[in-house]
Amino acid sequence: MHVAVIMAGGSGQRFWPVSRHNHPKQLLRLTSPEQSLLQEAVGRMSGLIAPERIFVITARHLVAPIRQAGIGLPDENVIAEPCKRNTAGCLVYAAAYLMAKYDVPAEDITMAVVTADHQVPDHELFLKRVEAAMAAADALEGLVTIGIKPSRVETGYGYIELPENAEPVMGHQTGRPVYRAEQFWEKPTPEDAERYVESGRFLWNSGMFFWRISSFLAEFEHANPVYADALLDLMAAFGADDQARADAVFAELPDISIDFALLENAKDVYVAPGRFQWDDVGSWDALERTLPSDPRGNVTLGDPILVDTEDCIVYNAPGAKQMAVAVVGCRDLVVVTTEDGVLVVPKAQAQDVKKAVIALKERGSSQL
Amino acid sequence: MHVAVIMAGGSGQRFWPVSRHNHPKQLLRLTSPEQSLLQEAVGRMSGLIAPERIFVITARHLVAPIRQAGIGLPDENVIAEPCKRNTAGCLVYAAAYLMAKYDVPAEDITMAVVTADHQVPDHELFLKRVEAAMAAADALEGLVTIGIKPSRVETGYGYIELPENAEPVMGHQTGRPVYRAEQFWEKPTPEDAERYVESGRFLWNSGMFFWRISSFLAEFEHANPVYADALLDLMAAFGADDQARADAVFAELPDISIDFALLENAKDVYVAPGRFQWDDVGSWDALERTLPSDPRGNVTLGDPILVDTEDCIVYNAPGAKQMAVAVVGCRDLVVVTTEDGVLVVPKAQAQDVKKAVIALKERGSSQL
Repeated sequence: MHVAVIMAGGSGQRFWPVSRHNHPKQLLRLTSPEQSLLQEAVGRMSGLIAPERIFVITARHLVAPIRQAGIGLPDENVIAEPCKRNTAGCLVYAAAYLMAKYDVPAEDITMAVVTADHQVPDHELFLKRVEAAMAAADALEGLVTIGIKPSRVETGYGYIELPENAEPVMGHQTGRPVYRAEQFWEKPTPEDAERYVESGRFLWNSGMFFWRISSFLAEFEHANPVYADALLDLMAAFGADDQARADAVFAELPDISIDFALLENAKDVYVAPGRFQWDDVGSWDALERTLPSDPRGNVTLGDPILVDTEDCIVYNAPGAKQMAVAVVGCRDLVVVTTEDGVLVVPKAQAQDVKKAVIALKERGSSQL
Repeated sequence: MHVAVIMAGGSGQRFWPVSRHNHPKQLLRLTSPEQSLLQEAVGRMSGLIAPERIFVITARHLVAPIRQAGIGLPDENVIAEPCKRNTAGCLVYAAAYLMAKYDVPAEDITMAVVTADHQVPDHELFLKRVEAAMAAADALEGLVTIGIKPSRVETGYGYIELPENAEPVMGHQTGRPVYRAEQFWEKPTPEDAERYVESGRFLWNSGMFFWRISSFLAEFEHANPVYADALLDLMAAFGADDQARADAVFAELPDISIDFALLENAKDVYVAPGRFQWDDVGSWDALERTLPSDPRGNVTLGDPILVDTEDCIVYNAPGAKQMAVAVVGCRDLVVVTTEDGVLVVPKAQAQDVKKAVIALKERGSSQL
């Protein structure tokens, strides 16, 4: 049985002032005027998996906003994590939930884990890769991921290294090869990133994973038994309909990512290379890659006035009361305006928006 | 009889989005949280001249906002120009109005002409100079101005040149000398400005003038008789209570400044040097000179969040709904926010805000 789990717990600090505590990045229409990133993610997966088997796992306070956002899934498929325990906790929780729900052997559930907040314009290419990765997860023991062929030297992503002269372990004939992964690397320095991209053997870590729950459990037993135990405990709690116990088990888990907790120490990790356009839309500067720009290199929304301005991103959020926004004589700047918040930051420092959000929290701002 | 005329017809484009068509610069609290620039100007002059003899001359659409602004003058002392005819038209209109109102000989009315939108923190020093200039206007035939001792090389002001080795024509004893002016110069190039300031013989043209109406009329008869005729025609129209005729006479006047129309070609022009701090608060970057800055060189209002930001001016206008404003990683930038407008411009291009206002006009924006 194939199921999809869409991780949608992001807190959305980096898209302030548009993203807010109850309206994070995955609910924003950052790359399309019609659809939020989460709607797009659900829509993409619906090409392969029926909506009843697509699950969104998110923070408790986001369950209601997501259900209200009309993403085309049954309400009960939007699942709340008891608290924030990073992607490792999130996926163990999801796996246990699915085991309890479907009550079939662990090798009979193959999970596709995708994120809620990436941009993938070409759904067809995407789905072909996902199909290949799911087939690999069905056929092999171990964990499968999709690695994206880098289109630029990028220090903001993790990388997956393939072995030298790697031979596909699957997909020789279909043209959708799957390789054994050599090693996972964290976000690199600019020098390392250049080396990675030149070598041709490094792929971007997309954060998409495919595994049978039996393989997931077995790899945790090998690499990080705490999580294997937690998975079984959570299953038991769900089986007994004991949410309080599930909450307690979950709260004990460390706050680390699935890459740290599992992938980097797993025995058998495979990677399906993807050549499709993919962007994690990680901060405001990503809009430059995901939206069209004018002849002067400006990406705009909400009809700002630009005078003598080049290579800027000016996002004037649509709203009941549209702001008049004028940017004069600027270069390489991000300007974001909403009805009650304004951000100005150079593109190169777009990540630092988080610092402003922290400062707003400290002063107890209502605009969070 | 001493009267003061405060010119307050500015359209306030350069302080958009805070300044608006019906709320121009002179009504803004740019340099003080308590008082608008116009309130400050009235307050300063009240130290020398009774409020009943202080007049504000402004555009028609600004009469009501100014009367409502509580500037401490009788309502009838706020006078409307029929249309925009620059400072020459404005002052001829005011002189004719005063002649008709007081019905005394032209040599018995000495006008102090000051602007509504300059910052002069030291009222005492200012008033001493004004007193000296008024005394000179009373005693001499001709036009008197106050020239400000330059405190920096400034290309944004006009300059008044004194003769070499100038001897005061008045005020030898009092320490408040008044000199004959050699020549008026328009806004200089940076090279000329540097030369001017080094020479010690050049003063900033403050736009403040002092004359008996008889001298004003006589100098116009010499330099630009069209204005002398207009002054007499306007007096006659006011005497006959015929505003329509006054409007028609006024509309015929050219749209030029008092410097061009009169000062540059007048026979007798005198200058009283002033050493007080003076700023024309011409655009947003002026706030840096007129308001205190923090240790990183930032001038802020309305409690914005600044992260890794230096030498910026961030003006978050007070209002019913205060915006949350975050500026991250910026240098030398002006950021201005109101409830419905946002401006971002480098300090060095603060003058270009006018271009944005023109663009907003072209699109019929309501935020003007």
